[in-house]
Amino acid sequence: MRFKVAVVGVSGYSGLELLKIVLRHPAMECVAVMAAEANGGKRVADIHPRLRALTSLICDPADPERLALSKVDTAFLCTPNEVSHELVPKLMALGLRVIDLSGSFRLRNAASYPPWYGFEHMAPDLLERAVYGLSEWNAERIAHADLVANPGCYSTSALIPLLPLVQSGMIAPGTDLICDSKSGVTGAGRGPRLEMLFAEVSENFRPYSPITHRHAPEICQELDWDLNHFTFVPHLLPVTRGILSTIYVCFHGRVDEDQLEAEYRRRYAQHRFIRILGSARLPELSAVNHSNFCDVGWRLTCDGRRGIFFSAIDNLIKGAAGQAVQNFNLMHGLAQDVGLVEGMDVATDD
Amino acid sequence: MRFKVAVVGVSGYSGLELLKIVLRHPAMECVAVMAAEANGGKRVADIHPRLRALTSLICDPADPERLALSKVDTAFLCTPNEVSHELVPKLMALGLRVIDLSGSFRLRNAASYPPWYGFEHMAPDLLERAVYGLSEWNAERIAHADLVANPGCYSTSALIPLLPLVQSGMIAPGTDLICDSKSGVTGAGRGPRLEMLFAEVSENFRPYSPITHRHAPEICQELDWDLNHFTFVPHLLPVTRGILSTIYVCFHGRVDEDQLEAEYRRRYAQHRFIRILGSARLPELSAVNHSNFCDVGWRLTCDGRRGIFFSAIDNLIKGAAGQAVQNFNLMHGLAQDVGLVEGMDVATDD
Amino acid sequence: MRFKVAVVGVSGYSGLELLKIVLRHPAMECVAVMAAEANGGKRVADIHPRLRALTSLICDPADPERLALSKVDTAFLCTPNEVSHELVPKLMALGLRVIDLSGSFRLRNAASYPPWYGFEHMAPDLLERAVYGLSEWNAERIAHADLVANPGCYSTSALIPLLPLVQSGMIAPGTDLICDSKSGVTGAGRGPRLEMLFAEVSENFRPYSPITHRHAPEICQELDWDLNHFTFVPHLLPVTRGILSTIYVCFHGRVDEDQLEAEYRRRYAQHRFIRILGSARLPELSAVNHSNFCDVGWRLTCDGRRGIFFSAIDNLIKGAAGQAVQNFNLMHGLAQDVGLVEGMDVATDD
Amino acid sequence: MRFKVAVVGVSGYSGLELLKIVLRHPAMECVAVMAAEANGGKRVADIHPRLRALTSLICDPADPERLALSKVDTAFLCTPNEVSHELVPKLMALGLRVIDLSGSFRLRNAASYPPWYGFEHMAPDLLERAVYGLSEWNAERIAHADLVANPGCYSTSALIPLLPLVQSGMIAPGTDLICDSKSGVTGAGRGPRLEMLFAEVSENFRPYSPITHRHAPEICQELDWDLNHFTFVPHLLPVTRGILSTIYVCFHGRVDEDQLEAEYRRRYAQHRFIRILGSARLPELSAVNHSNFCDVGWRLTCDGRRGIFFSAIDNLIKGAAGQAVQNFNLMHGLAQDVGLVEGMDVATDD
Repeated sequence: MRFKVAVVGVSGYSGLELLKIVLRHPAMECVAVMAAEANGGKRVADIHPRLRALTSLICDPADPERLALSKVDTAFLCTPNEVSHELVPKLMALGLRVIDLSGSFRLRNAASYPPWYGFEHMAPDLLERAVYGLSEWNAERIAHADLVANPGCYSTSALIPLLPLVQSGMIAPGTDLICDSKSGVTGAGRGPRLEMLFAEVSENFRPYSPITHRHAPEICQELDWDLNHFTFVPHLLPVTRGILSTIYVCFHGRVDEDQLEAEYRRRYAQHRFIRILGSARLPELSAVNHSNFCDVGWRLTCDGRRGIFFSAIDNLIKGAAGQAVQNFNLMHGLAQDVGLVEGMDVATDD
Repeated sequence: MRFKVAVVGVSGYSGLELLKIVLRHPAMECVAVMAAEANGGKRVADIHPRLRALTSLICDPADPERLALSKVDTAFLCTPNEVSHELVPKLMALGLRVIDLSGSFRLRNAASYPPWYGFEHMAPDLLERAVYGLSEWNAERIAHADLVANPGCYSTSALIPLLPLVQSGMIAPGTDLICDSKSGVTGAGRGPRLEMLFAEVSENFRPYSPITHRHAPEICQELDWDLNHFTFVPHLLPVTRGILSTIYVCFHGRVDEDQLEAEYRRRYAQHRFIRILGSARLPELSAVNHSNFCDVGWRLTCDGRRGIFFSAIDNLIKGAAGQAVQNFNLMHGLAQDVGLVEGMDVATDD
Repeated sequence: MRFKVAVVGVSGYSGLELLKIVLRHPAMECVAVMAAEANGGKRVADIHPRLRALTSLICDPADPERLALSKVDTAFLCTPNEVSHELVPKLMALGLRVIDLSGSFRLRNAASYPPWYGFEHMAPDLLERAVYGLSEWNAERIAHADLVANPGCYSTSALIPLLPLVQSGMIAPGTDLICDSKSGVTGAGRGPRLEMLFAEVSENFRPYSPITHRHAPEICQELDWDLNHFTFVPHLLPVTRGILSTIYVCFHGRVDEDQLEAEYRRRYAQHRFIRILGSARLPELSAVNHSNFCDVGWRLTCDGRRGIFFSAIDNLIKGAAGQAVQNFNLMHGLAQDVGLVEGMDVATDD
Repeated sequence: MRFKVAVVGVSGYSGLELLKIVLRHPAMECVAVMAAEANGGKRVADIHPRLRALTSLICDPADPERLALSKVDTAFLCTPNEVSHELVPKLMALGLRVIDLSGSFRLRNAASYPPWYGFEHMAPDLLERAVYGLSEWNAERIAHADLVANPGCYSTSALIPLLPLVQSGMIAPGTDLICDSKSGVTGAGRGPRLEMLFAEVSENFRPYSPITHRHAPEICQELDWDLNHFTFVPHLLPVTRGILSTIYVCFHGRVDEDQLEAEYRRRYAQHRFIRILGSARLPELSAVNHSNFCDVGWRLTCDGRRGIFFSAIDNLIKGAAGQAVQNFNLMHGLAQDVGLVEGMDVATDD
């Protein structure tokens, strides 16, 4: 049994990554790929040469009616915020399920869109209906959703280590959470911009949008945390993919290793894509890139009053396309890891 | 039905790449991984953190007897030349089939070993018995082999474009073949050496071992070409993986596009891992990395007397682990691409 | 008038960088270069090919007597901690002035050496006599020093932005300072180690030694700050050179842009190598690499209670060799920037 | 005594590199910098942050009259071909000397411009008057030139090793010269293009414009060699700067090491920027980057009938800005290396 799916916005980096997974997914049949006007009529294998001999699909311009006629069950949107904002209501009106990788349906409060996204939101009802697609935390709601707002890449890297701490009450109320994140360039999309040229990025490293990045309100919404006590500073790494976040917290009282270990095990024991490294080993990009894993590690200060948490993900997979497919699996009653694992000799004791 | 396999020499880059494929291969069961003494007893997931939660295998020191007791059908050797040279006779004596990724059984003439490899070959009988594992050219012999000498990475990148030209008689006899190859650093192994440090390789590029590289006699043996008329110059690229070879030939008479196209199509039409780009597009590493494909393209000079051929492969996959698995598939009557394709929506018309 | 100098430990990255500056410095004559036994007798141009045709100097094994006989005025030590620890007392006994780039004379308290450096310090008297070579802060004492302990690279990147804040009382007492630093690989030296191979570092990023790095006590000593309230987390960037530090502080009361601007201008107006970017622009490695500049920028939270400070330096220049030469200039009554500026059309209003 | 100079086209990579040298050159005073309209009125230090505190110059739009009024002696043009083509006649009519880094005045035959550059040349008289600025070969003519056509980066890397071979008659007439070149990305300029994004270039490598690159006719013109017997294949390296060319030739008769050594020494002994490595060592980018050196090495085949020559330069320095300044020095009666050497302790015996 294969579900008909479409990938809209296939010419960017997350579109490519998603298509690679979709093409090998045993329960999906990709019946349409769509891209901006300029790429209409092109073979995806000409846009992304690594797909040569793997697919003969041809890009159409984005067209909701055509997807409905093709009996598409689920559409994945890898489109810019403004495009998703327009497409989602049309697709849903036609009865499709939608997994949107943009930020257009992540914030529940429509009033947040003008300041953070620069546009007035025209579908506040859908904001309520949309389920935030952090797979490990909202599995049940995702299973019944018809619109999943797939989390931002930075948000995923911050929420996975922070949610257990905040929800268990380990963090001292009123203290500041600091999230110092570092991302590869594909997080910024594939549009040609001077500051993304190889000669500008290689051998360079820099912060950007400190405090004002739009993933900050998204993270605070999911943590239920005051934005004034959350400091988010993203940086641009000279790597193609991957996000490593270093998170600084103050505990409510002292915390020891065993408590942390127990709390994380409790929350994530059933979730194979979250690998808890504890304080023994530290996350790094090379261990997670090209996979759907999120590695989490930590160190405590001597007095146990503060903790440093590290998380690493592939921004294009667990931070975008991989989690989107994980959500698709949840929505279709499949095991979460279908189509997402490299190896099959799964350890039971690791 | 799954065949029991072992990977010996798992701590290097080709060992890791091979293990990743083996773990997801539907017809293999990996019953043992072996590594040098220093890594004995370690979990492979501790040597290669990206395998965490994907395998619980533990490295043993290389031990032929133990493999025989485990009823291993096929052993893959990712070991240094000297180690393979010693292990292969023992494994074969115990009845195992062997796919050796080192150079120890590639040259048919034992007398070539002292000058090119620096050791006296102790198993000249096995040199005769070994089948050179260039999958697309020796499929039938590989299917019946019990010892496959897996080709060198540079050799694969040179032979795939050159064999059709040489065998069809298109190259002018007595002229010089020039192969200017560029490889990523994993071709040099994982041993810590000054010249392989990030600070030495990044923003650098250099030739090494011009003329005297040991893949030159291997290529000439398979082409049946005089080594004195073959100039091979490898260079070190600041990339982790991939080989691009630029090959210059003089034709016997004039050659036109259609002839070339026809010849390559004839030779490779049945071989999905060889993608013929012709003169329309040029190969590049990013199109083949992390895959078992070899892309081949060319340009002719205006007068049609000379040609420039380009090939691109992932040195760790088509140039090592991927081709090894392709050979395993041939040896076990499986389709050549089992376990080796990312996507499943295979184009028939590309 | 040129002073005779020697560079000891010339085969590493900071040794090379220092030698490049020394060779073009108008007030230095390099009369000797020394390296470990293994490189004795080699031309430095063979160890560092970029110096071909720029110097005919030959490496001697480190030998204090020979330097004294050559009437060396000042010796620069780019040697490992243990080697500096042994050489410095001998050189000083022979009457040389010493600028030591290692950590062996940076901590004033001898008792700090066993826990942080793993050896018992044998020259506690020299620890008292050594001047900490942060050029912009200790200029007068450096001018009269005969032993300068050149600051650590991370320490330089942290102290330049933090000292004005701490000394002016802007930081709330008892709060935590957090320094999230990212460094290129040359900070780790030129010894061949697996984790510094190109294939391990490229496309990777990772934290290391969180909390326990030995630059933490050095920074706290100079800030006069409680180590228990200082959290230092270094990370390894896939770049050859450069450090960017992101520093999080809580102010004592509210602070506004003008106060910060005024304080930094006051402290650094006379110091051309410190470029204050304020909140208008953000530091980045590409703006400082291959120079002796330190760029400092910041952002405040909306409520003005907390600040994020960014600093960028070239770890090999302002973080090592450049600052060492700046200190040499101070010790010899020269302008601080002799031999250290690329351009000569100095802006007076920037 | 300082000559007034201007840099036109300062916002690109060669413009920046040139300005860095100009600012530190003891015989130049930079009185104007010009850039395209979009950057008019901007401080160069805002376009290139590494120039902060090194210059207060502000970009004007390109304006020949203004340069004449400022009594500019020499204008350096780092402008696109079409812009140089228009500006040069105007500047010369106003009496300025011009060093043009574009290709607009390199080919002597006006008829070559439409096929190779896509425009009709409007100043054929200036093509005759322009001197090709390969400093080591045309020093006398450059000294008296008022228009220098600065060589292409690839051309410099090919001509320096090839000219001694061709002019001495060592190459067999009628044979093919093959030049397999690899360049860093700054050779392609600073315009934002998809294929120059970090994510497209990093971990990638590819040929481009084989046979048809416009530096081929330039090289053949200077060698006086038939374009039909010259095969030029450029490739794009994932590095910011540097070109390494690997050149394959057939000798006229046998050639031995001593002959080559003698010929190169004879031609280049007086030219400090050409470092002849012979067959003992091989050129590499890291040895020449950030310098005006060109390193040349070679290997012969066993039978001495063919040779492989390697050259390495920094494309932005010896391949552009550095050679332009070297030409300026020649035009103004200065030593060739003024403003161009890092170190001052020049070896006499290397």
